[in-house]
Amino acid sequence: MGSVRTQPGSVRPGGRTARVRAAVLRAAGDALVENGVHGLDLADVAFRAGVGKTTVYRRWSSVPGLVADLLDDMAEQSLPRSDTGSLLGDLTANARLVRTTLADPRQGVLFKAVIAAATCDARTAEALNRFYTTRVNEWAPCVEAAARRGEVPPDTDPHEVIRAVSAPLYYRLLASGDPLDEAAADRAAAAAAIAAREGAYARTER
Amino acid sequence: MGSVRTQPGSVRPGGRTARVRAAVLRAAGDALVENGVHGLDLADVAFRAGVGKTTVYRRWSSVPGLVADLLDDMAEQSLPRSDTGSLLGDLTANARLVRTTLADPRQGVLFKAVIAAATCDARTAEALNRFYTTRVNEWAPCVEAAARRGEVPPDTDPHEVIRAVSAPLYYRLLASGDPLDEAAADRAAAAAAIAAREGAYARTER
Repeated sequence: MGSVRTQPGSVRPGGRTARVRAAVLRAAGDALVENGVHGLDLADVAFRAGVGKTTVYRRWSSVPGLVADLLDDMAEQSLPRSDTGSLLGDLTANARLVRTTLADPRQGVLFKAVIAAATCDARTAEALNRFYTTRVNEWAPCVEAAARRGEVPPDTDPHEVIRAVSAPLYYRLLASGDPLDEAAADRAAAAAAIAAREGAYARTER
Repeated sequence: MGSVRTQPGSVRPGGRTARVRAAVLRAAGDALVENGVHGLDLADVAFRAGVGKTTVYRRWSSVPGLVADLLDDMAEQSLPRSDTGSLLGDLTANARLVRTTLADPRQGVLFKAVIAAATCDARTAEALNRFYTTRVNEWAPCVEAAARRGEVPPDTDPHEVIRAVSAPLYYRLLASGDPLDEAAADRAAAAAAIAAREGAYARTER
């Protein structure tokens, strides 16, 4: 179990490697929230985590490697989708979850930091895109179920609908600075549900 | 005219101060695209612009000051809204303009760089929010005109509709990494127009 060559994610939960990973990723998150990605330093993260520097350098090797693993861990940890029985109910649950995460002082800063890091590092960008793919895949079945219930046309692209719920909340966080309140979340969900019902997210030929 | 104390924007166009500002902001944009905000250096920008270092330090004083002025200039330079006679036509023009800008190799990288800079500097964040406020205010009359034509309910919040058009495109640029193609722009416009028509962007009491 103690092998540092084990790939993240393939480790027995509760083993020493998993405990080290959890401590290091928690410390990496703390450091990112405090100092941003340009203040992230593997030796500092090792110190915060109470783990040997050599272990951290050997396993994560670089800041982008560490941030990528943090994003993979965030994808693994994230909550399962809702199943309220209606598309509007499910999308509202999704929007409120995204809103609560982005409005949380620690999580909001963490998301800003990894998104900023992804703008200037390809490996971080890939990990970030993987994170969103995982989240969108988790929630897409809400739209598939709505299509089976006849709430939306059968050719609706489920991934587009889920992305449409998150997008206005990220736009507020990163661009316009408008408040990330629950009204914004509920409006994002309602707009996506209505547009989906009216066929705005029909699959396009690629 | 030559006074370095003149506020940006209050300068006679074509004067020496305006020419210096244009050269410095062009150089700042080039440097941001090449090296990101953490590689931005006032002396390097002065060199690229062919302007004395002292002038640049005296007028912009810091990297956040320079980036804020660049954003104010981008807001001043941006194109006027469309008036096609239909909400869908106007929103599609807006979405395609945003899409073309974000998908442009230079402009897309520049937007990523200033958004990343805004995540870790309050002054840059304020300038970024001002930029989006200016853009949204420019396009909001499209929705007001649609309300007068009866295309959307009279209590529609015009700013929310315009933000809803941009949001999915920024989400692709910054988070999910999905392609920024014209189909994405047209879908963002169509979804916002439909949701607006169905009352999803009614003003909420504040």
